[in-house]
Amino acid sequence: MIIAIIGGTGKEGKGLAYRWAKAGHQIIIGSRKLEKAQRITSQLKEEFPELEDIEGLANPDAAQKAELVVITVPFAAHVPILEAIKEHVQGKIVVDVTVPLVPPKVTRVTIPAAGSAAQEAQDILGDDVRVVSAFQNVSYERLLEDAESLCDVLVCGNNKEAKETVISLVEDAGMKGFNAGPIQNSIVSEGLTSVLININKKFGVHSAGIKITGIE
Amino acid sequence: MIIAIIGGTGKEGKGLAYRWAKAGHQIIIGSRKLEKAQRITSQLKEEFPELEDIEGLANPDAAQKAELVVITVPFAAHVPILEAIKEHVQGKIVVDVTVPLVPPKVTRVTIPAAGSAAQEAQDILGDDVRVVSAFQNVSYERLLEDAESLCDVLVCGNNKEAKETVISLVEDAGMKGFNAGPIQNSIVSEGLTSVLININKKFGVHSAGIKITGIE
Repeated sequence: MIIAIIGGTGKEGKGLAYRWAKAGHQIIIGSRKLEKAQRITSQLKEEFPELEDIEGLANPDAAQKAELVVITVPFAAHVPILEAIKEHVQGKIVVDVTVPLVPPKVTRVTIPAAGSAAQEAQDILGDDVRVVSAFQNVSYERLLEDAESLCDVLVCGNNKEAKETVISLVEDAGMKGFNAGPIQNSIVSEGLTSVLININKKFGVHSAGIKITGIE
Repeated sequence: MIIAIIGGTGKEGKGLAYRWAKAGHQIIIGSRKLEKAQRITSQLKEEFPELEDIEGLANPDAAQKAELVVITVPFAAHVPILEAIKEHVQGKIVVDVTVPLVPPKVTRVTIPAAGSAAQEAQDILGDDVRVVSAFQNVSYERLLEDAESLCDVLVCGNNKEAKETVISLVEDAGMKGFNAGPIQNSIVSEGLTSVLININKKFGVHSAGIKITGIE
């Protein structure tokens, strides 16, 4: 699958790019500046010579060329980025990884006016885009290692097939994905990031996560 | 500790009563009707003859007599119950277990106007009450068994000492509690219940839960 990672020059984006490229997907790293997208792509290829199919493009071109578009941007950039790619993602699946953190109080859950960042994306992009939220709780540090993931992935969205596609991408990235309900439920996975930051601080760790239990 | 469980005639409340009575706490089952509180108390004592210190009282009397008050009521009863016990819980810790489920769509997260049910409780009860939210994701079925818990407990609140008290009550009930941040973060643990209901349905189980990982 051709996957664009908008904000793919950030830590989470690079981690997902690495995992999916290794799994055989064609990856496009998107950035506001073409030059930066290309530079990060070169760095990734140098660090991981086994990765083949990665290129860097400006965000709108990345979104246009991809079959599926992943958004990993800071919350402050969420609305402008959505507006910049809107016309290029119609008819596609958009995976929103955005967490509505408002620095410096990142240990506190902030609820966006729409109810969640992913609902905000769905509202802006319109009904022809299948927005799915996922990956908000995954530590990028573990993505760039080949360590087994310690975090399950909650997958929210209003379209069942789109969620199934994303759950199989979660598996390609080496994790386990769970259908967590409609897009409005995304406030749980978004807010859980602040909860995990509290736990990281308390325990002096960087990669607290969750696992779903009781399903056997 | 003298613990009142308001709404203690429900399933979750009975489960907590059982666990804490077994751990040696003095338990008061509260209900809107004294007769019902007493009937459920008798049933619990019959079913578990090893439990000694349990009595049934009407909600306001239960709240008045307790050192710590736990609220396990349906969301529709949340505001009226809070108003009924308000004068009896001043200066105390109130543990809110309420989940803002709106039947029949219990698989969808509903965000109360206050931002969370626990924030609603804090707003109604006032600053002299230390509201702590906890236990929203724990399956009552496992509480009444002596099974090891499969679910960790997220503990939110604005007062650190109150959270520590509740975390030790979580341990007394046989589970592991985590400081999950301020009371506004409670929307995560409240909403997680809807997420777990989605997962229960998908897997045909009744007790999906979460465990915190990556803390060692």
